[in-house]
Amino acid sequence: MKVHGKPYRTIWPHPEQTGAAQIIDQRQLPHRFVVEDLASVADFATAIRDMHVRGAGLIGATAGFGMSCAAITAPDSEEAFARYIAEAATALCQTRPTASNLAWAVIRMQAAMAEAEGVAAKRQRACAEACAIADEDADFCRRIGEHGLAIIKTISEKKGGQPVNILTHCNAGWLAFVDYGSATAPVYAAHAAGIPIHVWVDETRPWLQGAKLTAWELGQEGVAHTLIADNTGGHLMQHGMVDLVIVGTDRTTRAGDVANKIGTYLKALAARDNGIPFYVALPSSTFDWSIRDGVRDIPIEERSGEEVCFISGKTALGDEQRVAIAPEGCRAVNFGFDVTPARLVSGLISERGIMRAAEEDILRLYPEQA
Amino acid sequence: MKVHGKPYRTIWPHPEQTGAAQIIDQRQLPHRFVVEDLASVADFATAIRDMHVRGAGLIGATAGFGMSCAAITAPDSEEAFARYIAEAATALCQTRPTASNLAWAVIRMQAAMAEAEGVAAKRQRACAEACAIADEDADFCRRIGEHGLAIIKTISEKKGGQPVNILTHCNAGWLAFVDYGSATAPVYAAHAAGIPIHVWVDETRPWLQGAKLTAWELGQEGVAHTLIADNTGGHLMQHGMVDLVIVGTDRTTRAGDVANKIGTYLKALAARDNGIPFYVALPSSTFDWSIRDGVRDIPIEERSGEEVCFISGKTALGDEQRVAIAPEGCRAVNFGFDVTPARLVSGLISERGIMRAAEEDILRLYPEQA
Repeated sequence: MKVHGKPYRTIWPHPEQTGAAQIIDQRQLPHRFVVEDLASVADFATAIRDMHVRGAGLIGATAGFGMSCAAITAPDSEEAFARYIAEAATALCQTRPTASNLAWAVIRMQAAMAEAEGVAAKRQRACAEACAIADEDADFCRRIGEHGLAIIKTISEKKGGQPVNILTHCNAGWLAFVDYGSATAPVYAAHAAGIPIHVWVDETRPWLQGAKLTAWELGQEGVAHTLIADNTGGHLMQHGMVDLVIVGTDRTTRAGDVANKIGTYLKALAARDNGIPFYVALPSSTFDWSIRDGVRDIPIEERSGEEVCFISGKTALGDEQRVAIAPEGCRAVNFGFDVTPARLVSGLISERGIMRAAEEDILRLYPEQA
Repeated sequence: MKVHGKPYRTIWPHPEQTGAAQIIDQRQLPHRFVVEDLASVADFATAIRDMHVRGAGLIGATAGFGMSCAAITAPDSEEAFARYIAEAATALCQTRPTASNLAWAVIRMQAAMAEAEGVAAKRQRACAEACAIADEDADFCRRIGEHGLAIIKTISEKKGGQPVNILTHCNAGWLAFVDYGSATAPVYAAHAAGIPIHVWVDETRPWLQGAKLTAWELGQEGVAHTLIADNTGGHLMQHGMVDLVIVGTDRTTRAGDVANKIGTYLKALAARDNGIPFYVALPSSTFDWSIRDGVRDIPIEERSGEEVCFISGKTALGDEQRVAIAPEGCRAVNFGFDVTPARLVSGLISERGIMRAAEEDILRLYPEQA
């Protein structure tokens, strides 16, 4: 997608340094657009853990490039190489416990390297596989957009061309993937097709990914949008101001339970209460085929309470400042995700098409997982 | 309740200047405790509109003192006095459109003055009535606490004395009333009775009344509490970490629909989905006996989008700073309240007792409104 009119992805191989990659440091958005070099496994782990990059697809792609960086920087002896790769895999996997794409990408990279004979071939294979993961992520998101477009088109026709109001939570935009995004892919596809749309952007406390990232990327693409406090969606739905909810997911069970940014479950409840379709967009790498009951079995990351008690933003002078919004010493907890039970999900939109959030329907599109 | 160990109300007659009052300037909390003088009708109107004071009961009490200030500062001739009072009433009523206590207090003050003969008597009567409104508010909240205590006690017994986890949204605390609060009155009563409790405090964007006021006042009283992003409550409820929700209300219909701070409806949905009791605490001045359907008929205040795009807090240097959290020029909307339909409310707790949120049950406690 575009930044200041110029096409970008969120991660790409460093043009001059094999094994390194470049990313957009998303902590600096929306106030500053900064490209960062990642050149060691520690750089990649830090970038994931400290959220220079975030979002299901981009975490996976970053882990992929992190593993190819490990392959390039590992010692030459076969045994030491294997140990180094295993350590890198562990280090990368420990950075964000809820993201299912993380382990998925690391395992895929290890499997690809296992197929190659000798360290030199493993290195070459790792670089190719990391690029393949990134390209595939972008391609899957593009296809999610094509499938989701049909839903928006139908609503637009019913409304006689009046703008379709879409609510989204957090950032499942192109910044969360390599390109296009998951929840935003249908939005961008509709915008490109000339369908009038308007997006309600949940600000998404505590990290404010909606205010800082989704509002920014929609603005860069020229999509009409309005920022709202996370508390607002229910009221909008009660008053007919939302036609459709589309969110992303960090992990989805084989039964269709959806872990996504904390607060998603509340919007799903409101959508159900007001008869508004609630869709979840995901590349299939986000499925965790090993579990069914998401509320019970998806581990929920708990982050520092400081992210609740302090907020960063730009002052009138243009510098970034962190301000305290709570009494000194106030205790806070900070769960990163919640789980929306499948019963509240109208449908899942993946690169293979649209399906009900039910094991039987999911497996119809993914028979290899049956 | 106590501030730094010393008992305070949120508003009181100025000790030296008849017709004036003193308030706690709540915009400065939790970082600074500042007492402000209000000495003209314009001062009172500004204090309400710009939220130096806020909350159902305190808005009513402030309007009461504002009307007595009008009576003291009005011209002496009967006709000019009447015109001045009418203008003050209009000015005060226009400050916050959703707050039902505002019009209630203004009308009560006018009725009291109408009973007195002559300007001097009207003035005296106005001062007495403003104090009566404040005293009654405090007394009603104290009684809400007594009634609500029974609910907490029952849960505490069921849990074998394990702490009762209570979630609240916004600030319906003593800072929102003259004393005790509505939603917090049962909390303070339980704390005083030695029942172990713990309060989940929704930070309550965009104004952050939870982070800035509720966390502060609970801390001053020594009640265990944890601050959370507004997105968090659903997850906590799914995992058995909430035993009870108690919120306040700015306006309640005769059928039991409840207008409260934006986001309350989402918590009510989550409570219902997880079988958790959801109570609304209110002094009866908060009832709007003229309407039944809250979603349709309660006007919802829309405030500036700036309150979403900018957040104020304390920097590391100790000064208050406003920071931008959204891209420059981002459009935002800011609805102040939403309406929770009576079907999601387990019960109403008023100074007269606990009742189901249904017209028939409400009128059983308020037969004079039948």
